[in-house]
Amino acid sequence: MPPEEFRRHAHHVVDWMADYLAGVRELPVLARTEPGDVAAALPDRAPEKGEPFEAMMADFVDSVLPGVTHWNHPGFLAYFAITGSGPGILGEMLSSALNLNAMVWRSSPAATELEEVVTDWTRELLGLPPAFAGVINDTASHSSLYALAAARAQAYPEVRDQGLFGLPRGRVYASEHAHSSIDKSVMTLGLGRDAVAHIRADAEFRMVPDDLVDALESDLERGIRPVAIVGAAGTTSTSSMDPLGALADVAERFGVWFHVDAAYAGPAAALPEARNLFEGWERAESIVVNPHKWMFTPVDCSILFCRRPERLRDAFSLTPAYLETSEQGQATNLMDYGLALGRRFRALKLWFVLRYFGSEGIRDRLRAHCELARAFAERVAATPGWTVSAPVPFSTVCFRFEPAGRDPDTVDALNRGIMDEVNRTGDVFLSHTELDGRFTIRLSVGNLRTTPERVDRAWTLLQDAAAAL
Amino acid sequence: MPPEEFRRHAHHVVDWMADYLAGVRELPVLARTEPGDVAAALPDRAPEKGEPFEAMMADFVDSVLPGVTHWNHPGFLAYFAITGSGPGILGEMLSSALNLNAMVWRSSPAATELEEVVTDWTRELLGLPPAFAGVINDTASHSSLYALAAARAQAYPEVRDQGLFGLPRGRVYASEHAHSSIDKSVMTLGLGRDAVAHIRADAEFRMVPDDLVDALESDLERGIRPVAIVGAAGTTSTSSMDPLGALADVAERFGVWFHVDAAYAGPAAALPEARNLFEGWERAESIVVNPHKWMFTPVDCSILFCRRPERLRDAFSLTPAYLETSEQGQATNLMDYGLALGRRFRALKLWFVLRYFGSEGIRDRLRAHCELARAFAERVAATPGWTVSAPVPFSTVCFRFEPAGRDPDTVDALNRGIMDEVNRTGDVFLSHTELDGRFTIRLSVGNLRTTPERVDRAWTLLQDAAAAL
Repeated sequence: MPPEEFRRHAHHVVDWMADYLAGVRELPVLARTEPGDVAAALPDRAPEKGEPFEAMMADFVDSVLPGVTHWNHPGFLAYFAITGSGPGILGEMLSSALNLNAMVWRSSPAATELEEVVTDWTRELLGLPPAFAGVINDTASHSSLYALAAARAQAYPEVRDQGLFGLPRGRVYASEHAHSSIDKSVMTLGLGRDAVAHIRADAEFRMVPDDLVDALESDLERGIRPVAIVGAAGTTSTSSMDPLGALADVAERFGVWFHVDAAYAGPAAALPEARNLFEGWERAESIVVNPHKWMFTPVDCSILFCRRPERLRDAFSLTPAYLETSEQGQATNLMDYGLALGRRFRALKLWFVLRYFGSEGIRDRLRAHCELARAFAERVAATPGWTVSAPVPFSTVCFRFEPAGRDPDTVDALNRGIMDEVNRTGDVFLSHTELDGRFTIRLSVGNLRTTPERVDRAWTLLQDAAAAL
Repeated sequence: MPPEEFRRHAHHVVDWMADYLAGVRELPVLARTEPGDVAAALPDRAPEKGEPFEAMMADFVDSVLPGVTHWNHPGFLAYFAITGSGPGILGEMLSSALNLNAMVWRSSPAATELEEVVTDWTRELLGLPPAFAGVINDTASHSSLYALAAARAQAYPEVRDQGLFGLPRGRVYASEHAHSSIDKSVMTLGLGRDAVAHIRADAEFRMVPDDLVDALESDLERGIRPVAIVGAAGTTSTSSMDPLGALADVAERFGVWFHVDAAYAGPAAALPEARNLFEGWERAESIVVNPHKWMFTPVDCSILFCRRPERLRDAFSLTPAYLETSEQGQATNLMDYGLALGRRFRALKLWFVLRYFGSEGIRDRLRAHCELARAFAERVAATPGWTVSAPVPFSTVCFRFEPAGRDPDTVDALNRGIMDEVNRTGDVFLSHTELDGRFTIRLSVGNLRTTPERVDRAWTLLQDAAAAL
């Protein structure tokens, strides 16, 4: 596409993007298509002849957009809500134009060095010690995979060359509320899903350190080798904080790798008033924090911090002749710190986000989200028949409608019905989890467009649905 | 950032992008910064107060851009050259505005279904049978990891739950010229690097099937379990094609998973005249093709095709309560086909690329790249003192300056000196590999801006450097 043609279309696209961002609140947040609708509207094969961009753009609006669930919508309160902020989008635009690959330093020095700089800025913002160095991966799933691969290499020094064959079984200890990516990483690493010990959580959904110690001792007695302890800094179901200090103590006592999954809540460590919840994470070997979750950076952008990055490099580096460069030893080749060779220029958007908002701006917005969630939780708690199901340390609220005199399964069905009814309105989108085996609705604030009025609207819709069912 | 502020900056950014793309040929292709230069120009920490976007954009131009190696440059002839084409960039812009996550169908039905549609379009374009279903990952490294995880599950049905402990050793068979991501995947999977059998290649750098059979038989005798045979459709060093039909025969005979790494050369299967080179890949279990390499799609976009996608799902699916949806069973949840939970809307840019160029347009451009490479190889071969070191099936040429009467180490040093000298000009960027232990220069055509004149320029610079040294 000649540059002038690109310029013309790109200006049109940018106007569409700005209009979209300005008007997204008018769209239904949850797509209303049925499975197969979008695919059915599209041809069976690529066109033989090229088509004008205008036709593609028209089809995007007519055929694709109705099938989009709008993560930008102020009423997106499901999963962990996120924001692709303006400066982040502008960074992505420039990255896509540069289309570079930061696999080795020389394949784009600026991308490698900016990644080192912005991950260090983030480290400093979150109050982690300077020993931690960060690399940016696409997702927390891969960040945790890489961290646990380094943990595996510590537990089994021979694994890099010889694999796990013939070695004593290993164990990764995580809360029963740990994210599924921990289990999937452990499976991928060849440790087997049974190698995940899901440690009991307390009534506030935090891993119980005494149970962790019991599990470690019992495993050691049986010859099972501890590989890693995974602490959750914000579990996915309730955003509960595992007692990181106590877990760090246990990890030190047993000489086990301590990994912290702070994919969602990590940015909240920027808040002095929340810092105490993170106490102990500075003693971890590895920490994952996703700026694409709650730090206003477009997907994908997951930082893996390591206190001894050489451990990561030892687990992964492998330089074939065709990737040798004369800077070996003088510069960082980021491909050495993980499996993925291809590396998009993800640092640019994070740099823009950190500068546009500033540390103060980021803290202000995180606080506002926490306040929205707490205010919502207070209203729920104050309303007869409704229960807040978990503490609200950040911006995520778990709650249920629990009218008296109904059996538990009926209450589950009722809550599912309420959630589905609310989601059908298109005004808000809520998701759910299970707590103590019971269906529980979640409301998570993480989008910069979410206003108090929108959270009020969610509450009104919930009450209406409960009354109607 | 309010939408109107975004609009203003985005128009500015788009003009910068168009100017950049129009003028990239005037910039030095390889960044001229020294290690640490870019980082040294940036502050130690994020600003406390937010900054205006104009300041960030100015710093991007002044401090970052000089450290960028320009993968868009017509003289980028290193590694595998790539193109982030206009329609692809426009797709990325829209994706970054939507900022959706296609982890489950309902989290954005259109993203899931468009991914199914465009991977099927690509399958059809490449002449693969309809049984193959595709998913888009970020990189070939992760695509191959996922494929080999499924292969591991076939070889060891108990691995998902119990891991590899206590099981007989396994082996993955690949050419001695297989990409390093195969070794890194095998290491990550806990099989150990020793589990990769690097099978000898012939004089044209293609795996020797008889040696593969010997290795399999010898391993089976020793109780080592075959996990996968990996065929390279375009090795990284020379773009040589393993004899895929013969490898498929061996895989069938021994009942072993057959994976094809066609990350670079896969798109060439769209050319009827090249289709014969791919014969046999339709019998693979899994194939990786990267549209972000030689199909004009911005990084990252790697398609993993599987003939039995349920094998991939069996290896990876694991649905926690907070990700259960009412569409389970009626729609595809793409998170089930790999480790990464987060999934950017990568299908959109590929859809735009396929439609903008059309199948014919893609074929025309691939052919033009192959012709540029072959014409270059012919000139090298016809020039005394110069040698083409490998066949040129596609758009990559390996060659050396080999003046008579020099010892091999001197010739290596000479070629390295020539390459460095040429790269210092900023007009072209070449990389190297080792063939038969000898330093070999590579020239790879993959950028849509590369003209015959630019390849001529590379040849002139090479000859000048050789004459000067």
